[in-house]
Amino acid sequence: MTLFTPLEQLLGDRLATSDAIRQQNARNEAHFPLAMPDAVAFPETTEEVAAIVRFCAETGTPITPFGTGTSLEGQHLAIKGGISLDFSRMKKVLEINAEDLNVVVQPGVTRTELNEELRATGLFFPIDPGADASLGGMAATRASGTTAVRYGTLRENVLALEAVMSDGSIIRTGTKARKSSAGYDLTHLLVGSEGTLGIITELTLKLHGLPEGIASATCRFPSVEEAVNCVILTIQSGLPMARIELVDEMMVRGFNIHAGSDLPEQPHLFVEFHGSPSGVAEQAQSFREIAEDFGMESWAEANTTEARNALWKMRHGAHFASAALRPGAQYGTLATDVCVPISQLAEAVLQAQADARAAGLVSTIVGHVGDGNFHCAARFDPNDPAEVEAVHAFAGKLNETALRLGGTVTGEHGIGIGKQKYMKAEHGPALDWMRRIKLAFDPKGILNPGKLLPPED
Amino acid sequence: MTLFTPLEQLLGDRLATSDAIRQQNARNEAHFPLAMPDAVAFPETTEEVAAIVRFCAETGTPITPFGTGTSLEGQHLAIKGGISLDFSRMKKVLEINAEDLNVVVQPGVTRTELNEELRATGLFFPIDPGADASLGGMAATRASGTTAVRYGTLRENVLALEAVMSDGSIIRTGTKARKSSAGYDLTHLLVGSEGTLGIITELTLKLHGLPEGIASATCRFPSVEEAVNCVILTIQSGLPMARIELVDEMMVRGFNIHAGSDLPEQPHLFVEFHGSPSGVAEQAQSFREIAEDFGMESWAEANTTEARNALWKMRHGAHFASAALRPGAQYGTLATDVCVPISQLAEAVLQAQADARAAGLVSTIVGHVGDGNFHCAARFDPNDPAEVEAVHAFAGKLNETALRLGGTVTGEHGIGIGKQKYMKAEHGPALDWMRRIKLAFDPKGILNPGKLLPPED
Ligand SMILES: Cc1cc2nc3c(=O)[nH]c(=O)nc-3n(C[C@H](O)[C@H](O)[C@H](O)COP(=O)(O)OP(=O)(O)OC[C@H]3O[C@@H](n4cnc5c(N)ncnc54)[C@H](O)[C@@H]3O)c2cc1C
Ligand SMILES: Cc1cc2nc3c(=O)[nH]c(=O)nc-3n(C[C@H](O)[C@H](O)[C@H](O)COP(=O)(O)OP(=O)(O)OC[C@H]3O[C@@H](n4cnc5c(N)ncnc54)[C@H](O)[C@@H]3O)c2cc1C
Repeated sequence: MTLFTPLEQLLGDRLATSDAIRQQNARNEAHFPLAMPDAVAFPETTEEVAAIVRFCAETGTPITPFGTGTSLEGQHLAIKGGISLDFSRMKKVLEINAEDLNVVVQPGVTRTELNEELRATGLFFPIDPGADASLGGMAATRASGTTAVRYGTLRENVLALEAVMSDGSIIRTGTKARKSSAGYDLTHLLVGSEGTLGIITELTLKLHGLPEGIASATCRFPSVEEAVNCVILTIQSGLPMARIELVDEMMVRGFNIHAGSDLPEQPHLFVEFHGSPSGVAEQAQSFREIAEDFGMESWAEANTTEARNALWKMRHGAHFASAALRPGAQYGTLATDVCVPISQLAEAVLQAQADARAAGLVSTIVGHVGDGNFHCAARFDPNDPAEVEAVHAFAGKLNETALRLGGTVTGEHGIGIGKQKYMKAEHGPALDWMRRIKLAFDPKGILNPGKLLPPED
Repeated sequence: MTLFTPLEQLLGDRLATSDAIRQQNARNEAHFPLAMPDAVAFPETTEEVAAIVRFCAETGTPITPFGTGTSLEGQHLAIKGGISLDFSRMKKVLEINAEDLNVVVQPGVTRTELNEELRATGLFFPIDPGADASLGGMAATRASGTTAVRYGTLRENVLALEAVMSDGSIIRTGTKARKSSAGYDLTHLLVGSEGTLGIITELTLKLHGLPEGIASATCRFPSVEEAVNCVILTIQSGLPMARIELVDEMMVRGFNIHAGSDLPEQPHLFVEFHGSPSGVAEQAQSFREIAEDFGMESWAEANTTEARNALWKMRHGAHFASAALRPGAQYGTLATDVCVPISQLAEAVLQAQADARAAGLVSTIVGHVGDGNFHCAARFDPNDPAEVEAVHAFAGKLNETALRLGGTVTGEHGIGIGKQKYMKAEHGPALDWMRRIKLAFDPKGILNPGKLLPPED
């Protein structure tokens, strides 16, 4: 008999304690050290999740949900040991309700798997973080991506959830109706809670009609300032951009290395328009007129589906393309994620660029600038104290700037381990009310302990 | 010295205990009996609200926020006595950030007051409940209206809040950035909480650009079934309707009496399109093609601003037009508010109509059907037990149907007193987690006691 015997009886070899499997879930794409869970559980049903949580509640065992492990603030790491609850065997698309534009999925389904399933319906799920993340993980981090400027984030696209709570009870939040005023919004409390308030076992998501017409293009600008000012005016003018991504000169260099592109090493915007064929042409024309006023130097359309896919594949590889600027498994990547009101975007981006240069960092800028959200990805050596300090000082300054400008330290990546130190600055006294929720929902502190909320001081 | 002496010292004659003023806040537009607060407080600043709440916390005095008192489930009624906290003196528009498409307001500003202030900016705040409600009250009930099908509800249009919590502490939730993944979503927990979790003292709301082109029309159908099926196909086809409202034959009769219109007493849709002038024409054409397939019998455009305003004024008067079908101050109105997935709309509407007829009720149907949301407004005599029973049986059956069809008992009016009895049926075990939140946020139970959560059984 070991502690985990009851779980082995429940799950058989879907309860893994081997080093190899535990190590798979101990890694991250950012810069956090390995964090080994004591065991990895692979449930297949909600009832199994509930049974596992009841076991954890009885034994005081920490339990950390795991989607695909791509989160960038260490959210999925079992830093207090215990169970890594791996959703890779809960991948069913349970209902496609085409006539109601929604879908019901298990949390382990990834965004590309879902869109694959939807292929024949004329519908799609638009939200696309760079990684092929799980929908449960995306809900838990309130993820977004390149299309949020048009279609919203995970928050705007979840209708209903099923969740297992800290005592093992199973609840359903929300309904399949488009709106409701029936009581407290538990759905949106769970979205973004990073597995610390409840474990999502089913999601009802909104779908959107595939646009009849799509046009994508890359365009080059003489400076980041002009590119950003073009974005600001585009958004203020109300053009319904489907995508509008900033790529700075360093990021272009990274793409050229990683994706084999040969773009001139100058700031670019990658844009996309959705609508009727005539609407798309009209939008593109309006955008070009704005861009020309900001000195746009080239306009290259990605006319075929293949060209368009290649363009966005390159963009989605930004994290690894940034790493390619300073290759080596010994280095980590710190990706900032500020989001500011659109009018403050130029100030935030220019300061970030200047600060990165001044600190001598190898850092790119890429971002969902239509939302006011951008990332600096700085490569550094976690074993070099001077670099560690420099990179954290850089991120700290940028985060302070974002707050001063009325924004947030994280537009989409979340808090996890890495951003806890900014929670007080961002939320002030509201942080105490978040703590009240955590205590009310997880009094034993078994759900993803050590995440999201900073230690009390 | 009375209990309220400290508040009188703080507020002077902005603490009213006269019968006349208490009675103003004791009334409602639905069917609930008068509920007199012991005093009405008229704060002018957040700090005054905080001081009043601290007083209530110390003395165990109930406190019920009051916007304009138009809520339809008795939400604003001080049913346990105590303080009615009246926001009619907190009406400042604090910031208009046109370049960021947002605005910061005090909670007492009404939707039409806000749009009046925005007149010169080319921007507007779209959400329009029938009544000229306060923005604080609209946030607290998660209100919507005719334009939610295009612009979303209050939930999708709040960026940030300031609130006074049950211990008198002042918090700020959210930021001015369009999205954030920084911790628990307190903003959307407060939205829809009907003053039971915190008191909203400031709102940052999204604005939208006034469309260049607007076209409105009324169109007549041979039957409710065909009108509803037209709506379903319109929504499924992805047409970006700005408004699409169902008006049944009884409702038309009410309008003809109340607004002096002379529409044929047949089912109608009232529609509106927003976009570029050419886009609007294209949309209207696409809609007409769908409508003709469902036997549309007439199409009347409201071409001038005056005609358009008259049309929507008539629509916004629906509550009083329903009352006009059975006039008399002795009668109350029970307005149902189910919201169902769009594919289930025809079933829900047709059953409601048949049930109302079978029960012999004087009842209209009008609704934001693009969202799957519609209201039956049934007039009844609160002093006639048979009528009371009939009207509640009717509403109960409709609410059950909505839940069976995957919907909600309230799309926009909220729970208040009137819908508590459906909370368990709609939420099941999730209701316990709502109770946990209430207990964590308001352990003394002073914030709008007796609302939203049903008594524990
Ligand atoms: C190359 C790359 C590009 C990226 N680009 C973006 C981007 O554009 N936008 C963006 O938003 N993010 C981006 N990210 C970050 C990451 O992809 C997102 O945070 C994503 O939502 C994580 O999903 P996951 O399935 O990997 O979750 P995991 O990393 O496995 O888990 C994330 C968090 O969710 C919790 N969780 C997982 N499943 C559940 C569940 N079922 N119930 C409750 N909690 C659960 C975990 O405990 C953890 O706290 C990127 C990451 C990489 C590596
Ligand atoms: C003719 C008519 C038509 C209507 N049409 C619609 C419609 O189309 N759509 C719709 O959604 N509703 C509609 N309603 C209902 C009503 O207008 C809405 O519920 C509205 O949001 C209430 O706003 P209020 O300012 O009147 O709030 P009140 O009725 O004063 O209060 C409503 C609730 O909010 C709380 N509250 C008020 N201010 C605050 C604050 N600052 N902080 C915290 N809590 C607060 C109160 O305590 C109460 O619980 C209609 C009502 C009428 C009479």
